Amino acid sequence: MNAPTLEEIREAAKRIAPYVYRTPVLTCASIDARCEAEVYFKCENFQRTGSFKMRGASNAVLSLEEEVAIRGVATHSSGNHGAALARAAGIRGVPAYVVMPKNAPSVKREAVRHYGARIILCDPTLEAREETLAKVVRETGASFVHPYNDQRVICGQGTAALELLMEVEGELDVVMAPVGGGGLVSGTAAAVAHSSPRTRVIGAEPANADDAYRSLKVGRILPAGNPRTVADGLRTSLGSLTFPILCRWVERIVTVEEEAIVQAMRWIWERMKIVVEPSAAVPLAALLTRREEIPGRRIGIILSGGNVDLDRLPWIP
Amino acid sequence: MNAPTLEEIREAAKRIAPYVYRTPVLTCASIDARCEAEVYFKCENFQRTGSFKMRGASNAVLSLEEEVAIRGVATHSSGNHGAALARAAGIRGVPAYVVMPKNAPSVKREAVRHYGARIILCDPTLEAREETLAKVVRETGASFVHPYNDQRVICGQGTAALELLMEVEGELDVVMAPVGGGGLVSGTAAAVAHSSPRTRVIGAEPANADDAYRSLKVGRILPAGNPRTVADGLRTSLGSLTFPILCRWVERIVTVEEEAIVQAMRWIWERMKIVVEPSAAVPLAALLTRREEIPGRRIGIILSGGNVDLDRLPWIP
Repeated sequence: MNAPTLEEIREAAKRIAPYVYRTPVLTCASIDARCEAEVYFKCENFQRTGSFKMRGASNAVLSLEEEVAIRGVATHSSGNHGAALARAAGIRGVPAYVVMPKNAPSVKREAVRHYGARIILCDPTLEAREETLAKVVRETGASFVHPYNDQRVICGQGTAALELLMEVEGELDVVMAPVGGGGLVSGTAAAVAHSSPRTRVIGAEPANADDAYRSLKVGRILPAGNPRTVADGLRTSLGSLTFPILCRWVERIVTVEEEAIVQAMRWIWERMKIVVEPSAAVPLAALLTRREEIPGRRIGIILSGGNVDLDRLPWIP
Repeated sequence: MNAPTLEEIREAAKRIAPYVYRTPVLTCASIDARCEAEVYFKCENFQRTGSFKMRGASNAVLSLEEEVAIRGVATHSSGNHGAALARAAGIRGVPAYVVMPKNAPSVKREAVRHYGARIILCDPTLEAREETLAKVVRETGASFVHPYNDQRVICGQGTAALELLMEVEGELDVVMAPVGGGGLVSGTAAAVAHSSPRTRVIGAEPANADDAYRSLKVGRILPAGNPRTVADGLRTSLGSLTFPILCRWVERIVTVEEEAIVQAMRWIWERMKIVVEPSAAVPLAALLTRREEIPGRRIGIILSGGNVDLDRLPWIP
């Protein structure tokens, strides 16, 4: 196992500092009252490109040697990582290639294009996606930046928790993050383990996409399958790099029902007056519905992103 | 004319400081690029009770002599002022009476009730409302706090601009606020006139509720009638106290179409990831569609509030 060291995460923070926002930490009196807790929200929904993914993507792009970087970067995420990688490549002035399935929503395609990536469409199957990506890499010499199973990406994602711990006065009892492929939660867990060892890290996952919960139970990576959840950022399986870090430093995974996710998302919009995507609301959903599994009063939550199709809100039929 | 002095506004700021948030000033790179300006948003959507109204209401309630306060306060606003007055009365520990039409949306009734006010329903006519309010005041001895035509309220609203001017480094060319009854824009204009005299104050109003625009043209208060606009906070007419302040210190009123208001509101949600109500988006709508009427590059905007019925968004049919 090659778990990120504190030095690696700090170096990432230094490397990306000129290109990412130091996002605010917000609190909300009515959410605190409802949760019987002090909840500190690290607002990565305000991050550049609308999610924490900008941290990992820019750390990866900025870590490349010049002669490698110049050939560009490539990935196959159609979501927040695709947009973030495109933006990070743009900052470095190198091309980004994003492989997307033909049936990806046009709003996602537009976002990736908006940040300047070249989009390569493929059939909507795993094989087509991997074949197309391999072909792009072969033809262009671009470096593949995996959405989460990449040490540089994990270290970049860990910088959000580092800032959260610095921002909040006194020790936190718990830090929570949503779990998809595990990039955010593993970076968070590493940062917390090194710099606030008594703080527990708890992951939150949709019950409908509980592969990380099950994987931790059985001790090996179980595939996510093709889960149906409103939290569209959390449908992926863990990776060979993220899984061991979860095993070591994530105390537990709490799962939540779809209705609770939508309810928590709406609470954040209504009470905090900020826009978050469903995936970002999963930790608060866990806190609201499974309070007994989350010990302590002082709780940090990474609000992972705010990219929502405003024409389709999950509480409007 | 009894325009607020700088001392009055500063006293209000001091009086309400323990009970209101010092809301953040946010900027947004993509909105700046689109407007060819540096726009500083004073986020009163994050204010207690979700709007700037908390400033004026708490200044009014806290200004009362103890033997008067104890009998409570009353008003007839079913919107943000009603909720703010209820909250302010709760802070002082005195009763609040809010007269509301029988047909007011239940979501508004719930908000006012949530903050602890006693609701008195009346028929949905102007006469019924005034009669009912007069009766409540007669029977309880409560003090009437008008939503905007009240010196203490105007001074309270002016504190938002005072904070904005302190927060932004260097001089602003323009400060913009939405115009309904004129409480916010007159308080803003007074604060700006006293503390940054070279900064112009420009009001923004829906074209469908352009009574302030027309009133300034003809030099007397014209009634708003019963305007149809998505900006539900801006349907009221100017008052005898607010109108003269507008005449003296508001450089102009810019009017905008409904579509532009919805578009600007959506921009703020999408780009800034914050929730604002339609009324709050009116100044940005003016900046986006009538740029030539708003001189200068450095522009402050008071985002007046964030109370939206999330089940009914104006861009969703």
